[in-house]
Amino acid sequence: MPFETKATIASFGGKLHKLTHPSTSTGTPMAVNLYLPPQSFSSPNPKPAPLLIYLSGLTCTPENCSEKGFLQHRASQLGLALLYPDTSPRGLNLPGETASWDFGASAGFYVDATQAPWKDGYRMESYITRELPQALFSDAEFGGRLDGDRVSIMGHSMGGHGALTLYLKNPGMYKSVSAFAPISNPGKCPWGEKAFSGYFGEDREEWKKHDATELVKGWTGGDLKALVDVGTGDNFYKQGQLLPENLEEAAREAGVEGLTLRYQEGYDHSYYFIATFADDHVNHAAKHLGLL
Amino acid sequence: MPFETKATIASFGGKLHKLTHPSTSTGTPMAVNLYLPPQSFSSPNPKPAPLLIYLSGLTCTPENCSEKGFLQHRASQLGLALLYPDTSPRGLNLPGETASWDFGASAGFYVDATQAPWKDGYRMESYITRELPQALFSDAEFGGRLDGDRVSIMGHSMGGHGALTLYLKNPGMYKSVSAFAPISNPGKCPWGEKAFSGYFGEDREEWKKHDATELVKGWTGGDLKALVDVGTGDNFYKQGQLLPENLEEAAREAGVEGLTLRYQEGYDHSYYFIATFADDHVNHAAKHLGLL
Repeated sequence: MPFETKATIASFGGKLHKLTHPSTSTGTPMAVNLYLPPQSFSSPNPKPAPLLIYLSGLTCTPENCSEKGFLQHRASQLGLALLYPDTSPRGLNLPGETASWDFGASAGFYVDATQAPWKDGYRMESYITRELPQALFSDAEFGGRLDGDRVSIMGHSMGGHGALTLYLKNPGMYKSVSAFAPISNPGKCPWGEKAFSGYFGEDREEWKKHDATELVKGWTGGDLKALVDVGTGDNFYKQGQLLPENLEEAAREAGVEGLTLRYQEGYDHSYYFIATFADDHVNHAAKHLGLL
Repeated sequence: MPFETKATIASFGGKLHKLTHPSTSTGTPMAVNLYLPPQSFSSPNPKPAPLLIYLSGLTCTPENCSEKGFLQHRASQLGLALLYPDTSPRGLNLPGETASWDFGASAGFYVDATQAPWKDGYRMESYITRELPQALFSDAEFGGRLDGDRVSIMGHSMGGHGALTLYLKNPGMYKSVSAFAPISNPGKCPWGEKAFSGYFGEDREEWKKHDATELVKGWTGGDLKALVDVGTGDNFYKQGQLLPENLEEAAREAGVEGLTLRYQEGYDHSYYFIATFADDHVNHAAKHLGLL
């Protein structure tokens, strides 16, 4: 099914397309923003752009990072496209779906739920890894402007968990991964325990399949090509929701190399933090996508 | 009266201070955000930073440009401080104050009203040109970090009107001016007619004292040092709310030089537009503030 364009906005020389499309994974319409850099539509020789997927955090929509993350600044210089998906299905009207800000709507955790009533629509893993890229790369309007063989992934907070786990579960699907303040060990933090109990039930062995700290132990893909930034002033880090140290220790114990974990002095959990280091994360992806 | 700090947020190596202080101009507490670049507090040799005041548009608060304008990106590199005031008094509870999005609350137009009931609190011109800088430059915490002799001003839409008129009314107060999509001839557009009728009454001669297109005719300060960007996809431009061509024609007829008016192909009225050319506007101010 084609994408419907709700708005096209000029940004840093490129175009931000605000789109919606019907999803079979979620059974709902899904909003998604696509940024095409100027190189992908400049005449006379447009160049298909590699794609960096940005997964957003709890409470977010495709708008948050489009407006406040400033990934477009550096992506436009390098010729990199950006994809900003939503954080959950919207409008399924499941019982309790909008009762919490950290579970249900806007808190899909980028997994395919196995428990009722969530299992029928909360299938963000299938949506992000298969349905959305397939729809995009085969789209009549946008497909030709993108290089579907060169894709990287990144995210923030819950989206950092999403980026790390989808990367670790699918060797070769993405050329690199990066994260701001990721939920790095959801099986051991309150946010993750709440979400995984709801989406997967109480079998904690099942949870490990969706936990970056567990998944990294089985990584056999070589250099991890992972960049992670965490602010030392981040209250969620201080509260033990993020646990990046567990991810780092697990990687070290497993002999996995290529995880660059940086602690940024005084930065919080907000988009002010993301904006500050946005160029670094775009450069990280661009290097592994052959743009730098 | 001192400023009260509501939050301090790390941004691009500097600090964004979310402040509030009681204002005698408005008779209300006023929110204001101050960005201090790293150079202004780095040890061992902190350097007092020149200041760029950003006046925001209709419906905005100090948060909009702090989050979405991207001015901190370049200001942090150059050692420039940024000041984001609010767009009106808040909480006066005047009749009709919150009935419109383009008059009253969040629509103070950076003038001192002369008509009841607005004249007692809607005094944003006095607040921006005198009270706020005086309070800031004499403040025990922030004053020493700022160079009160080097100040420039800029703004967006209603704030572009504010920046241009306060600059033109006060030769020497600001080293330069710039604007995104400014209301350039408020006496001739619906937004301006509504606001000026309410704040000044129906005497259109009075209106001319607060209209950049009229004020530029009397400018005797030499090179205008003004940069204005307008997007050709801006619906408010197309509707005749901005009228930058009138400002340009008035300057030309008056023999005033130094107005650079650029039309940016396809850009709209949003912060996506501002973010794209934020570096240019910071560079413009920095050049006239001796930082470039």
